[in-house]
Amino acid sequence: MFDSTAPVAPVVPRHGRLRPLGLSEVRITGGFWGERQDVNGAATLTHIESRLESEGWLPNFDLAAAGALPEGRRGREFADSEVYKYLEALAWEIGRTDAAAADPLEQRFRAVVSRIAAAQESDGYLNTRFGRPGQGDRWSDLEWGHELYCLGHLFQAAVARHRTRPDADDGLVGIARRAADLVCREFGADGRDAICGHAEVEVGLAELGRALDEQRYIDQAALFVERHGRGSLREIEWGQEYFQDDVPVRDAEALRGHAVRANYLASGATDVAVERDDAALLDALRGQWERTVERRTYVTGGQGSHHQDEAFGDDWELPPDRAYSETCAGIGSVMFSWRLLLATGETAHADLIERTLFNVVATSPAPDGKAFYYANTLHQRVPGVPADPEGTSPRASSSLRAPWFEVSCCPPNVARTFASLAAYVATADDEGVQLHQYAPAQVRTSLPDGRAVAFDVATGYPVDGTIRITIVEDAEFVLTLRVPSWASDAVLRVTTEEGLSEKSVLPGTAAVERAFRVGDVVELVLPLVARVSAPHPMIDAVRGCVVVERGPEVWALESVDFGADVAEAVVAGDPVEVEGRVALPLRRRSSGEVAEVPLVPYHDWAQRGPSTMRVWVPTV
Amino acid sequence: MFDSTAPVAPVVPRHGRLRPLGLSEVRITGGFWGERQDVNGAATLTHIESRLESEGWLPNFDLAAAGALPEGRRGREFADSEVYKYLEALAWEIGRTDAAAADPLEQRFRAVVSRIAAAQESDGYLNTRFGRPGQGDRWSDLEWGHELYCLGHLFQAAVARHRTRPDADDGLVGIARRAADLVCREFGADGRDAICGHAEVEVGLAELGRALDEQRYIDQAALFVERHGRGSLREIEWGQEYFQDDVPVRDAEALRGHAVRANYLASGATDVAVERDDAALLDALRGQWERTVERRTYVTGGQGSHHQDEAFGDDWELPPDRAYSETCAGIGSVMFSWRLLLATGETAHADLIERTLFNVVATSPAPDGKAFYYANTLHQRVPGVPADPEGTSPRASSSLRAPWFEVSCCPPNVARTFASLAAYVATADDEGVQLHQYAPAQVRTSLPDGRAVAFDVATGYPVDGTIRITIVEDAEFVLTLRVPSWASDAVLRVTTEEGLSEKSVLPGTAAVERAFRVGDVVELVLPLVARVSAPHPMIDAVRGCVVVERGPEVWALESVDFGADVAEAVVAGDPVEVEGRVALPLRRRSSGEVAEVPLVPYHDWAQRGPSTMRVWVPTV
Repeated sequence: MFDSTAPVAPVVPRHGRLRPLGLSEVRITGGFWGERQDVNGAATLTHIESRLESEGWLPNFDLAAAGALPEGRRGREFADSEVYKYLEALAWEIGRTDAAAADPLEQRFRAVVSRIAAAQESDGYLNTRFGRPGQGDRWSDLEWGHELYCLGHLFQAAVARHRTRPDADDGLVGIARRAADLVCREFGADGRDAICGHAEVEVGLAELGRALDEQRYIDQAALFVERHGRGSLREIEWGQEYFQDDVPVRDAEALRGHAVRANYLASGATDVAVERDDAALLDALRGQWERTVERRTYVTGGQGSHHQDEAFGDDWELPPDRAYSETCAGIGSVMFSWRLLLATGETAHADLIERTLFNVVATSPAPDGKAFYYANTLHQRVPGVPADPEGTSPRASSSLRAPWFEVSCCPPNVARTFASLAAYVATADDEGVQLHQYAPAQVRTSLPDGRAVAFDVATGYPVDGTIRITIVEDAEFVLTLRVPSWASDAVLRVTTEEGLSEKSVLPGTAAVERAFRVGDVVELVLPLVARVSAPHPMIDAVRGCVVVERGPEVWALESVDFGADVAEAVVAGDPVEVEGRVALPLRRRSSGEVAEVPLVPYHDWAQRGPSTMRVWVPTV
Repeated sequence: MFDSTAPVAPVVPRHGRLRPLGLSEVRITGGFWGERQDVNGAATLTHIESRLESEGWLPNFDLAAAGALPEGRRGREFADSEVYKYLEALAWEIGRTDAAAADPLEQRFRAVVSRIAAAQESDGYLNTRFGRPGQGDRWSDLEWGHELYCLGHLFQAAVARHRTRPDADDGLVGIARRAADLVCREFGADGRDAICGHAEVEVGLAELGRALDEQRYIDQAALFVERHGRGSLREIEWGQEYFQDDVPVRDAEALRGHAVRANYLASGATDVAVERDDAALLDALRGQWERTVERRTYVTGGQGSHHQDEAFGDDWELPPDRAYSETCAGIGSVMFSWRLLLATGETAHADLIERTLFNVVATSPAPDGKAFYYANTLHQRVPGVPADPEGTSPRASSSLRAPWFEVSCCPPNVARTFASLAAYVATADDEGVQLHQYAPAQVRTSLPDGRAVAFDVATGYPVDGTIRITIVEDAEFVLTLRVPSWASDAVLRVTTEEGLSEKSVLPGTAAVERAFRVGDVVELVLPLVARVSAPHPMIDAVRGCVVVERGPEVWALESVDFGADVAEAVVAGDPVEVEGRVALPLRRRSSGEVAEVPLVPYHDWAQRGPSTMRVWVPTV
């Protein structure tokens, strides 16, 4: 049964242009994303829990419960949050797979929750790093302490649990509620006039408020959003923009500073703007999104061009070799874009989500789901050194995927995103359903007036460009399909009892309004051919280079295919394509030799051992 | 009187291809560098001492002497070293200006030395940060503690004092000797098998050994050099190459890791190679220098393309907008190149010294000598914010020169370099004198066989290209002049009683061997015209751009001259020159408007308030 009244989704605005379809309405049934969801469920979640145990981040809660923590606590100040993100991932996975109460996933979930519950203090405070004898006082280090950040992730986990298992008696929602009440008491209008150095509590509180119908939480999120930009956090070497505490959210022109913080804050601010009907704030955020996408976003969708402060650079500062493009910043960008898509209905947001999912989020995990990129460079100059599969790596220096990091935010962030991915595929409005992302799927929902909408999606996307939608229940509605911005020769084909109609459609959306009958087929045929793109002339770092794209995928040149360091490569012709694989004629700078060299989709790079790699290839 | 037996210079190898001429043999009498030396003596030294007092770094020694340090100590772990570099600068300035014992400079010097002396422990240990109750144990944090690093700077200060005032009774040389003896006891062949995380003690010990004729110190320096590259320092996020502890010095192919550490280590290793006649080590260092200059050095001579770890990037990774190009790395590069020049006589080393002095070291200080660049970007995308003249800035984020930094290594490093600059101008061998850098100067020395060599240099270099050398004492010798690598149409003119002879000379050296008579004039005429250079095709970050150079100076485009953000600029013609000032025809990207826009020598940029700036200008 599908329940369309309360979508089982991470983001459920009370209003907006589009209503999200949740995990009970959309099921990904295979293909590119389905395979990744399966690996995530079968391997990644176990890998993460194993590391959370062995690194001590989960045992920290046991130590806290036993009153034995200070010297024994392990991990960085934000280690608690990884446990919460893991819980969130588990909750979505339980929802996605319809795991029963006796299922091992459910048992694991409950076991973790009970360990967290034991560590919560009587007034709701929950953090293994602060507040005990021998530790810093609660809220004494708002710049770096990450206490509110950790709680934000707790709230998101509780939201996932509440939406996937509303009747569960494990207690996670109660834990979150007690912590959220504490936050409102401590940081409310009459409390500490302060913010957290890492935004996240805003988005967590806003969604918890939506899920539990607690306006207080949304108002508290709004307080935190509005308090940014007054310089209440200490000056640091990288400036207060690192924390987005340099300029008020509604006055900023672009995302800036730490790229994860910036996207999380923008996501929370969008939630607040929507819930409070704050058109001025929403407009400011839309403007920031546009400027950021135009001038501060890599061709992969990646964001953040500084290693030092994991931050956005200035406008047009997009060096491929020093791209930081943190996996979590990509996920944060998807979060922000999705909220704007729900609020505005503009397909540009879905275009960026697609670009970022295929070229950042999908790039991070190895095929086995047990190693990850934290940073996603667009140019690897020196072959990397394989990471120790039992070891823990620094964040960005590993040039091959690593199993775990000292700062290990990315693996559980990928896990929760994959487990909830079906919630980003489609939306509905009063008249019909909008399909934003293309994957083999079942869509079953009903419109506000009770019309049941049910169809299946079959596609080999992104290798193949045909998306075939078959109606499985009679209903009159508008089916709207996103035509990606790169799809300049797309065709829409509708096959019914009455015959075949076919037309060209332009980038944006293609809608079919009709009284659909079971067996009707709507096909969107996207022109999946390799295309060459030149960079914006203002981007200094890739002047004189081009990139090859095919559909939503950016393609990369690896030395293992070129037979030489990619520094030697100069484009010598147009890309050619054989059965969905792309090759590019390249000249070797030193020898002048020309050959057609296979490229790989960027998300597949570094899967054949150490090599050099580049996405932007010189033409001179 | 000139004393040529023991040059008054920072670097005095016992043998090698060339013998340095010291401050008693070469005096800079004005011009570009003379003005900077005067500002350094009149303003910078006082500015530094005032900050060392107000920041607490000099009072730390008083606290240490009074046994009152732990909570009261101020500054970073390497704060002691800034006091030593200041002392070194004072010592050279006293030597340069022949300050008498009653001179305020001499009084200041003695006052600082007595405060340091009071803080030295009975066994020779000297550091305000370690070894007391409430502090870390001595040598307990070799990665970051900087104890040996600080002592290396103490040794260099003592060398400066010993060479400029060999009979002084202030005690600095004794302090250094006791500390060096302690280092040899603690870290000798039978002691701790360890190195310091920041190279510097190697170069300090080697020179102290030369100055005091203590082979033990040189051998200890050799031990430290050879111990690098065995991974004895802890792994850190940026890898052991940060400390040059990844690969043995004699096996490395290029400088790598932290650019100041790398150059200081290479300098010490060159000293060791020369003193121990270790041709294999010297060859390795020459190879590293060549590879580093070809692939890891900016057009300014700047080194270091990573902000995060203040490090060299990979080969060809030279982003102008994220150039770190730390002032101290430039000074370290001059130190390394100078040692190789003395050892080999190859003019390429002097070429790089000139490039680096004019475009990195001269760029750092403001004209008033009281504000500095720590990092030297080649592309300023956003107008900077003026630094508070009373404040203390982070290292690299200030985009206008700042009076002081939390890590304030650069100001005293510039000061000691300027005060000793005459020692980098000329050298001698058995047959004559070599002039490497061009400035108005007096040169007075004698060759090993007793021949007195005396001449004056007059020049308006680098604005004017004529270097006029007038002989002031009869003598037969070979006068060798460096012809810079960019000087493709240089002319050498010799005017004697016999008349004028003139010939074209090629880049490299031009030598005149004759029995010079008083009044003979040798003129080197260098073609000082603006020239346009394209980057090496392997440097990705500036593909499709050109740089304008004139003589040794790199020129820059500033928005204040362009009348628009420099991001708008596209080259529209060849540079033109009016009275030594260079202008470049530029097209505005948005409007298409073309105008001749004045450029400024890079070292003069950011002297007219906040502006955007670029050195590499797009041609497309």
